Amino acid sequence: MNKQFDTVRAIVWKDDGLSLLDQRKLPAEKTYLNLTDAQQVADAIKDMVVRGAPAIGITAAYGVVISAMQHANLEPKARREVIQNDIKILAQSRPTAVNLFWALDRMSSKLAETVDVNDLLSEAHQIYEEDIEANYRMGELGASLIEKTGQALLTHCNTGSLATGGYGTALGVIRSAFSQGKTDQVYADETRPWLQGSRLTAWELVQDKIPVTLLCEGAAASLLASGKVSWVIVGSDRIAANGDVANKIGTYSLAVNARYHGVKFMVVAPTTTVDMQTSSGEQIPIEQRNEQEVLNCGQSRIASEGAAAWNPAFDITPASLVDAIVTEKGIVLQPTLEKMQQMMNS
Amino acid sequence: MNKQFDTVRAIVWKDDGLSLLDQRKLPAEKTYLNLTDAQQVADAIKDMVVRGAPAIGITAAYGVVISAMQHANLEPKARREVIQNDIKILAQSRPTAVNLFWALDRMSSKLAETVDVNDLLSEAHQIYEEDIEANYRMGELGASLIEKTGQALLTHCNTGSLATGGYGTALGVIRSAFSQGKTDQVYADETRPWLQGSRLTAWELVQDKIPVTLLCEGAAASLLASGKVSWVIVGSDRIAANGDVANKIGTYSLAVNARYHGVKFMVVAPTTTVDMQTSSGEQIPIEQRNEQEVLNCGQSRIASEGAAAWNPAFDITPASLVDAIVTEKGIVLQPTLEKMQQMMNS
Repeated sequence: MNKQFDTVRAIVWKDDGLSLLDQRKLPAEKTYLNLTDAQQVADAIKDMVVRGAPAIGITAAYGVVISAMQHANLEPKARREVIQNDIKILAQSRPTAVNLFWALDRMSSKLAETVDVNDLLSEAHQIYEEDIEANYRMGELGASLIEKTGQALLTHCNTGSLATGGYGTALGVIRSAFSQGKTDQVYADETRPWLQGSRLTAWELVQDKIPVTLLCEGAAASLLASGKVSWVIVGSDRIAANGDVANKIGTYSLAVNARYHGVKFMVVAPTTTVDMQTSSGEQIPIEQRNEQEVLNCGQSRIASEGAAAWNPAFDITPASLVDAIVTEKGIVLQPTLEKMQQMMNS
Repeated sequence: MNKQFDTVRAIVWKDDGLSLLDQRKLPAEKTYLNLTDAQQVADAIKDMVVRGAPAIGITAAYGVVISAMQHANLEPKARREVIQNDIKILAQSRPTAVNLFWALDRMSSKLAETVDVNDLLSEAHQIYEEDIEANYRMGELGASLIEKTGQALLTHCNTGSLATGGYGTALGVIRSAFSQGKTDQVYADETRPWLQGSRLTAWELVQDKIPVTLLCEGAAASLLASGKVSWVIVGSDRIAANGDVANKIGTYSLAVNARYHGVKFMVVAPTTTVDMQTSSGEQIPIEQRNEQEVLNCGQSRIASEGAAAWNPAFDITPASLVDAIVTEKGIVLQPTLEKMQQMMNS
């Protein structure tokens, strides 16, 4: 396992509650917000203080612990009911990333056994640790697919330590590939409207001294046409049973362009992102966010008054455009329902 | 001809020189800059006070007139030499849009005949007027290709009155289509890094009361997959003899996605944008602009310190992805060298 690049923790548990790195303010400010209430945790997820499917799941798990702490004075039965209600509130924060529901389900199962704060905390810690371990494993597996040395890689959004427990999914593969000398140049889409590429991915890679070059999404097709890039590597918010992939808006365009240019397309996500209950991408709910996110850039109004905006936060890449799905359980090439079932049951 | 939508002039000739609407400040401020020196005109083009291939050509033509005015006290021979030198300065402002070189060549030819300011001014006025007339003609021709009614159209960058003498190329077609009831919804890419879609296209369409919905470039593939859009309509900065199209970065990705989704792709540009001396897109010089344009959004730094950026201003869409090129001389379907020659010689 390669732990040389593991420089930041976005989710920190403290004795009195949860501390989240406010990712909305990066890279200008590195500020942690302390949350001591389940509703605050739900709001932090909704408002994108924390983002990234695995990180959302971990945060929600700690949200359940916070609820238990808040209501430690109640009788066990009443306490369980209140916590269950907070789980519902947490589940309403964002609709697309399935890790949120997976983590809340896991905490609900634990809650059925115990209402003890320490037991619930221990379960949340375990979710966190398992995610980090899965990332290291995916890093190795994904990097093994990159055959040539010295090839550039292209990624989208942020899938690093900030989006996960640590190390990262797609960015974990990129970290592993870099440490193995398989790439010396990472290209990152800036990823409008939230600019996770410019603000977060570049920030992580600069800290790791991995050369990073940003580009606007519109330039990705030209980059792929140049022949410099061997793999496009992205994360996911939910993978359907047939291998269709929901991920940050802009991913689908990259997948179409990768296929057109003969560049391979890799999706890296833990099995907590795989939703075998959802048969295909069409069934995945796509979060529509406020049009102000497009009409503004940061704090500044950029668009003409009177214009509307369409702001889907995610898109669906069909399995047919995916060359490899990498989870901690293994690699699925040219994904199908059968191959996904086999991997999940392994 | 449909002149109902023709609300703004970005290039205004005054007795004492040229007045350019400072498009960098739109939509927040509507300020005109007065230019009285050819170098100022070259800088205004380079710094994107004015942009859009036809508008750059018209501006450069007036730059030649300004040079003649500045040096009206010189003897004809010396005056011609100084103006020729200013033409070289103007030619160095931006490399991709061929309209610049076309307009300067035309002014050079006139200069070979006369150094009289009024003669040169009259030639520049004619270039301007011809461009507007070409736009109205292209509007009609392009709109004739849109068969269905009530379909949405998708455009990229700004190709309207601000980018031309008036009315617009791709946006002229959209204006004509709207006035004919063939579309009731225009989608416009925001067009990073300069945000010409959000700032300029939306501003023009809002003034014309044409419904406009902005989207980030990353969302275009999802929009095309939705089936709402019948045509992607764009302008061009240079069309090679074989029909390859240079246009604002992001155009090529749209063309790849349009083809993948079975949506038609139209390029609208006057014959002054067609460069029959350039055999294919590979020969078109692509301007690389400062990385700060990507690392910042407006005045605000968005990217992590230490990150680099790749900022090509244009890309090349191969003729094979283009369903129609519309010029004022006619429509070229599935462009080839032969068809382009035929259209240019018609």
